[in-house]
Amino acid sequence: MLLSVADYEAAATERLPEPSLAFIMGGAGEQRTLDANIAAYDAIRLLPRVLVDVTVRGSETTVLGQRVSFPILIAPTAMHRIAHPDGELASARAAGSTGTIMILSLGSSLPVEDVMAAANGQVWFQAYVGRDRGLTTEVIGRAEASGCSALVVTVDAPVVGGRMAERRHGFEVLPEWFASGHTPMYGLTAPGASGASATELWDASLSWGDLIWLRSRTRMPIVLKGLLRADDAARAVAEGVEGIVVSNHGGRQLDSAVPTMHALPAVVDAVGGQSAVLVDGGIRRGGDVFKALALGAEAVLVGRPVMWGLAVNGQMGVEHVLRLLADELDLTMALCGATGVAGITADLVAPP
Amino acid sequence: MLLSVADYEAAATERLPEPSLAFIMGGAGEQRTLDANIAAYDAIRLLPRVLVDVTVRGSETTVLGQRVSFPILIAPTAMHRIAHPDGELASARAAGSTGTIMILSLGSSLPVEDVMAAANGQVWFQAYVGRDRGLTTEVIGRAEASGCSALVVTVDAPVVGGRMAERRHGFEVLPEWFASGHTPMYGLTAPGASGASATELWDASLSWGDLIWLRSRTRMPIVLKGLLRADDAARAVAEGVEGIVVSNHGGRQLDSAVPTMHALPAVVDAVGGQSAVLVDGGIRRGGDVFKALALGAEAVLVGRPVMWGLAVNGQMGVEHVLRLLADELDLTMALCGATGVAGITADLVAPP
Amino acid sequence: MLLSVADYEAAATERLPEPSLAFIMGGAGEQRTLDANIAAYDAIRLLPRVLVDVTVRGSETTVLGQRVSFPILIAPTAMHRIAHPDGELASARAAGSTGTIMILSLGSSLPVEDVMAAANGQVWFQAYVGRDRGLTTEVIGRAEASGCSALVVTVDAPVVGGRMAERRHGFEVLPEWFASGHTPMYGLTAPGASGASATELWDASLSWGDLIWLRSRTRMPIVLKGLLRADDAARAVAEGVEGIVVSNHGGRQLDSAVPTMHALPAVVDAVGGQSAVLVDGGIRRGGDVFKALALGAEAVLVGRPVMWGLAVNGQMGVEHVLRLLADELDLTMALCGATGVAGITADLVAPP
Amino acid sequence: MLLSVADYEAAATERLPEPSLAFIMGGAGEQRTLDANIAAYDAIRLLPRVLVDVTVRGSETTVLGQRVSFPILIAPTAMHRIAHPDGELASARAAGSTGTIMILSLGSSLPVEDVMAAANGQVWFQAYVGRDRGLTTEVIGRAEASGCSALVVTVDAPVVGGRMAERRHGFEVLPEWFASGHTPMYGLTAPGASGASATELWDASLSWGDLIWLRSRTRMPIVLKGLLRADDAARAVAEGVEGIVVSNHGGRQLDSAVPTMHALPAVVDAVGGQSAVLVDGGIRRGGDVFKALALGAEAVLVGRPVMWGLAVNGQMGVEHVLRLLADELDLTMALCGATGVAGITADLVAPP
Repeated sequence: MLLSVADYEAAATERLPEPSLAFIMGGAGEQRTLDANIAAYDAIRLLPRVLVDVTVRGSETTVLGQRVSFPILIAPTAMHRIAHPDGELASARAAGSTGTIMILSLGSSLPVEDVMAAANGQVWFQAYVGRDRGLTTEVIGRAEASGCSALVVTVDAPVVGGRMAERRHGFEVLPEWFASGHTPMYGLTAPGASGASATELWDASLSWGDLIWLRSRTRMPIVLKGLLRADDAARAVAEGVEGIVVSNHGGRQLDSAVPTMHALPAVVDAVGGQSAVLVDGGIRRGGDVFKALALGAEAVLVGRPVMWGLAVNGQMGVEHVLRLLADELDLTMALCGATGVAGITADLVAPP
Repeated sequence: MLLSVADYEAAATERLPEPSLAFIMGGAGEQRTLDANIAAYDAIRLLPRVLVDVTVRGSETTVLGQRVSFPILIAPTAMHRIAHPDGELASARAAGSTGTIMILSLGSSLPVEDVMAAANGQVWFQAYVGRDRGLTTEVIGRAEASGCSALVVTVDAPVVGGRMAERRHGFEVLPEWFASGHTPMYGLTAPGASGASATELWDASLSWGDLIWLRSRTRMPIVLKGLLRADDAARAVAEGVEGIVVSNHGGRQLDSAVPTMHALPAVVDAVGGQSAVLVDGGIRRGGDVFKALALGAEAVLVGRPVMWGLAVNGQMGVEHVLRLLADELDLTMALCGATGVAGITADLVAPP
Repeated sequence: MLLSVADYEAAATERLPEPSLAFIMGGAGEQRTLDANIAAYDAIRLLPRVLVDVTVRGSETTVLGQRVSFPILIAPTAMHRIAHPDGELASARAAGSTGTIMILSLGSSLPVEDVMAAANGQVWFQAYVGRDRGLTTEVIGRAEASGCSALVVTVDAPVVGGRMAERRHGFEVLPEWFASGHTPMYGLTAPGASGASATELWDASLSWGDLIWLRSRTRMPIVLKGLLRADDAARAVAEGVEGIVVSNHGGRQLDSAVPTMHALPAVVDAVGGQSAVLVDGGIRRGGDVFKALALGAEAVLVGRPVMWGLAVNGQMGVEHVLRLLADELDLTMALCGATGVAGITADLVAPP
Repeated sequence: MLLSVADYEAAATERLPEPSLAFIMGGAGEQRTLDANIAAYDAIRLLPRVLVDVTVRGSETTVLGQRVSFPILIAPTAMHRIAHPDGELASARAAGSTGTIMILSLGSSLPVEDVMAAANGQVWFQAYVGRDRGLTTEVIGRAEASGCSALVVTVDAPVVGGRMAERRHGFEVLPEWFASGHTPMYGLTAPGASGASATELWDASLSWGDLIWLRSRTRMPIVLKGLLRADDAARAVAEGVEGIVVSNHGGRQLDSAVPTMHALPAVVDAVGGQSAVLVDGGIRRGGDVFKALALGAEAVLVGRPVMWGLAVNGQMGVEHVLRLLADELDLTMALCGATGVAGITADLVAPP
């Protein structure tokens, strides 16, 4: 029975070949940050409020001014076709049909134009800034032209983290079995041909000064993904970014990075409401979404759960995963006396 | 050998079929709150006082002004016939014969009139307030008319928690094997017939304002069950309720709710002696009862242990479970230098 | 290879029958206090001092003014013949030959006169105060007349703790296989005959007032064994007792009692040097002895390790166990820059 | 695949015979300090800084004024030939070829002159001060004459710790299979012959006063290895030593000693920059090196990982182990926004 995200994880694990699992599930190093992200949610206890009329309630809200049915977005993850032949088309449609936003990865296994043509809702575009700024400009331009409504710039990846599982399965350069039969959008071609690895495409020189250049390339609002420090968040606000994703890249970059839920409160304080604060990493249940919102996030991003849904049942699988999370969020709200996301307040979290 | 509640748990687990176990043992979600309730007692250490004459000692006390032999009540749990054919008749007689109070669940598998006819001691009645207030009024009236001496209103269940084990065994609607051959009191009939699930019967609109209405329906003292927050407890006192049960529904409603023993001290502080404070969840030994009283509870409620006693040996099993707990409480009192429940003071708990 | 107390534990476990092990190893309830006693030592970290000349060092000291080669005494445990036919004769000789003190239990499996005739060193006598004060007076008189040099009164046993392993093996009344062929000193005869259980012999009325009576019965210095609270310790000092053993009865009385090492510092503070403070429970290595002394104990008592030594090799086994502990204490002293027990100071313990 | 130090540990464990493993891997007592050293690194979380240009970065630094490619030195460990026939020749060459420093152990399985002849980089010499000061003088003189550039004096070993695994494998006196075919430098000959054990060679009288004598025997800078206390570190600074290694001897001396990473901050504070502070014990990844530097160490020493590299592939194995650690350090620096070791600051460590 598929009653929870954990059920989807188990089902996807049975279905997918080892190397795909290594890519989807794996984290950096010994996966301490990956595990800590999840454990951080487990450790948070709630103090539910009772005797509130919760007959009428809803989790709809806005993120960057865009309406969503629930504050759960699809995180940018690469190569959805590794999980299902429909790839990003299925994920984008699932986001649209459930009323939320997909963040399309630069590492999409299908061209942004094709995904946007299939999409029936808001799509944001995630980009790494590559060493070849011309190529980055072109890519951002294609995303904007196709209708993407925000630009998510990943800032925690000047170099690639030590992803051991991927390396043990030869993922440093993308596998041939993946490349055949599709045209990836952005240089990420099969090994034999160009063979460019992520390390070569990313830019270790990316720094605050580049935000001005980025701003000049697009009218999309800009979200920085991958901040964990309060001082970095304050700087981001000062630079005028529209949003921040508190993220450690799902534990795939720096093993030992603080879990995102430990970092969130200080970032929320530093931002002081001047920018949207989102968070990702370790969210496996609707109760986790509730906790993230109680500690100040406007919305969360989920990555691996979407890939599991995709692997198990394509678009319908992703829809079901999103609905399970939304239903669990709704249940948690009802049991805590919150009728809307505004009612998910910090006093509902028990002191440690 | 049945020397402890844990022995009864093991014996009941061997005896009962899977679906019954799922219903009796299961908690919401990943059962983190269920486990945390128990772990919270384990973590409390005692600082026994010595060289006190404890020859004469006793655990008798009063709860809501009613005398009990020991401060351990039977918690309201549904469908005792799932554990034993005698169902609530056996439990009520066991409570009476050992000198304590049974709280009869609205989800009783036998009519309140039958249970009260069999009872030989005080019985309280637990009610959910349903969407059909007429039905609720009727039920409360039947309980009062039958002789129930307090009304316990469950307030932590505006909707049903995510009880995964039950759902995996099809407990969303009650199983046919259970319904045949008995007449449940209150709409909880077999699936084929009315098929009403708990969700439909409970009322998500229940709020503080409804207490006035409740008060007008009965002269029984009112106890609110399911509070965890100090501010909710203070409000309950302000509304004039006679008692509060600090409870997270035995971990069956909100997975991640704070364990009851973590919530208890702040509630006791907020109530300031103006109302009785009881607690349930995770009590498996007499020493746990001692700890709850040391931290300010007037009495505790035990649910699952009663079901285990019932499953193993009907009325005699429940009596034995209650006596084991009472004997262990007595032993803990003797070893801590407390001759009565008034001597179970906070300084007997070691600082963390 | 028998290189540590743990090796003796393993060897004794292989050698002894189940019921003997249940008696020797078991604790009350779920053995949480038994385990916590040991874990408390594990959790303490040392901050060794270096570049101290430790060529000449020694662990000899005095306890109640009596010289010992090392501050490790044999704790009073009942029925040494359960472990070895030589019983208390072997233990007493081992204490004497290694230069330390044996505390002979009231529950000795051999008469005090026989043990004292065999002993070649100081022996203290442990007594419970029984309901029959005449019998207690007689017993204390026999101990003093035989040459015992201190009286240890157990104060944490107004009633018998819930020793589950013993009860599962029928130890509530002493087993027949044990009684045959020996003459226990004090009513603890075989079941068929008098069948008196410990519960009947102990006195739940024992309180501070009885100390005056006790004092009138003997000229031996009095040590109270089984205190954990600072206020009880202060009272003991006010009553003029010569010594205190911080003890939870090796986890055999109140399951959930605070581990002795958590209780020790507050007791030491309260006593302020006006009385000797000893500690027992959970000591398995010489480093544990060092930690107890660093936190203010004058000496420690070891019980189960002595029984293991006895079971494995009689007197020689006990001697070896004591020497292993003394050697490890000596090693810890050398590595921490302490040349004598006076140098085992609190600053050698790392802050938590 | 050998992608990490853990892979080398696994491979070495497969390759080496039991007694060699006992010597290389083992710690004192129950190996609590050995385990705690490693766990202390695991528990530290990082707060990476983003949007820093890290294109150009490097881990080169100086230790005692000597340039190294990365702040990872080879710790002094005895008898490298136990791991590989080339022994210390291989290790010294690996250090030189990767641009770091080897600290040659007094317990070297090859004469210091041979090692220095093979070495292609800086080598420091580690000495115990033995009871025979003439021998110690001679040894230090040979090291200095051979070109060693610093003297590391071990101060945490007045006596030998309780190394149980070694003792179980008969390592109290060195095994015959080791001695055959080589000429150990310093008395550590085969059992049949002189049979001198470490205990006899070390000097329990070594104290602060001896530093003046040591200083008179050599012009090499002096580093004290084995301090954990702030007051000892302050004294060392007052005595004018050039460096300190915060060390518990890799958990091989005092089981229960505080893990080195818990001791480091107070030592760094006490030293106040007047002396170099190094640290060893439990370093298994480049991220651990980063954490040690963030908390104030100038460099770290690695022992067991070098032995594993040696066992698996001689000089090339050691080089690979060092390069893996250096690469992981570089990766951690890149992901934390540090372009050089000076940028590895305390604010990159998350508060606990």
